[in-house]
Amino acid sequence: MNSARRSGRRAGRTETRARILKSARKLFARRGFDGASLRAVAGNAGVDPALVVHFFGSKAELFAATLTLPFELSELELLLRGERATMGRRIAEFYLQRIFHERADTVLSLLRSSVTNPDAAATLRRTIESTAVALFEQVFRGADAKLRAELVASHMIGVFLARYILRIEPLASLDEERLIEIVAPALQRYLTAPLKRGRR
Amino acid sequence: MNSARRSGRRAGRTETRARILKSARKLFARRGFDGASLRAVAGNAGVDPALVVHFFGSKAELFAATLTLPFELSELELLLRGERATMGRRIAEFYLQRIFHERADTVLSLLRSSVTNPDAAATLRRTIESTAVALFEQVFRGADAKLRAELVASHMIGVFLARYILRIEPLASLDEERLIEIVAPALQRYLTAPLKRGRR
Repeated sequence: MNSARRSGRRAGRTETRARILKSARKLFARRGFDGASLRAVAGNAGVDPALVVHFFGSKAELFAATLTLPFELSELELLLRGERATMGRRIAEFYLQRIFHERADTVLSLLRSSVTNPDAAATLRRTIESTAVALFEQVFRGADAKLRAELVASHMIGVFLARYILRIEPLASLDEERLIEIVAPALQRYLTAPLKRGRR
Repeated sequence: MNSARRSGRRAGRTETRARILKSARKLFARRGFDGASLRAVAGNAGVDPALVVHFFGSKAELFAATLTLPFELSELELLLRGERATMGRRIAEFYLQRIFHERADTVLSLLRSSVTNPDAAATLRRTIESTAVALFEQVFRGADAKLRAELVASHMIGVFLARYILRIEPLASLDEERLIEIVAPALQRYLTAPLKRGRR
């Protein structure tokens, strides 16, 4: 339909590229990096496999092009510029109410690709380091800023795995508000407390 | 060699079963649940695929038979029966010095299968709930015992992902002793502090 409405080589290229990306995103999400072949991506997009290589080079580069973090950097920035003393709670809410609900497919897709393929893991690492972690450091400053961001994220990704993938009980059925209250102080400590031996 | 030394139908059955399990373990670890076909498991074990079905029924049952937690329950019990006030630190050491080093392959294999296949995730969930979490509840008692165990485990599995799979920096290169000091208070809080809104 789109191709009927538009015309010209440029529009055709852009649309083909977008169609390949859409197909790739879907297949990476469903089958992971290893399971999604360039041939299948091309097939689902209705193009020749050579065209996928022409546009993106390799599967790793195609994966990098489809890679979307499960949040907008602007959302994260807004959160990080808010009050520090209550940030643990707000980050817990951000993960549990937004990312793990509305973007659960993206999180699962990134997880799947990362644990099944080292190239995919490296691509994701570079993206996270250069976007979310860099932004966190820019806003938070301080020698340990990056580490704090990663401690928070690693805790929450573990909660995602246990609650939504393994669905281990009672964690999986725990009331969301109670879970937020439980993890918020742990996140708050990682965000603002001195990062050494604690006194609890 | 073994089959030359032993004789009798029972020994043959036991050995064949063990050979299938060994092959299955290796393939599940390398390719995940979806990627490891019964045919490939049979091929690597040098038996007919029908024999795998005869012994184990389905792929899910074969997976359940190969499923090994990355620690012995007796190790965990010893740990849990120790002093409560320092348990956060000892559990952090247990994960970082033992499980994530010596049993990293097992952890990765379980992760891979769980995030790529819901049946594998359900099998792992049942195993964890009926072993580690049940043991924890038995030793710790209290209404929230299971939840405490799962909060600790979910945090540490997130650290495994970030540090050893994604290898995100600076977390990946952080000195192990410092990381233990940093996560220990978070684990300690989950283990022994009241599970409600914290005051940090």
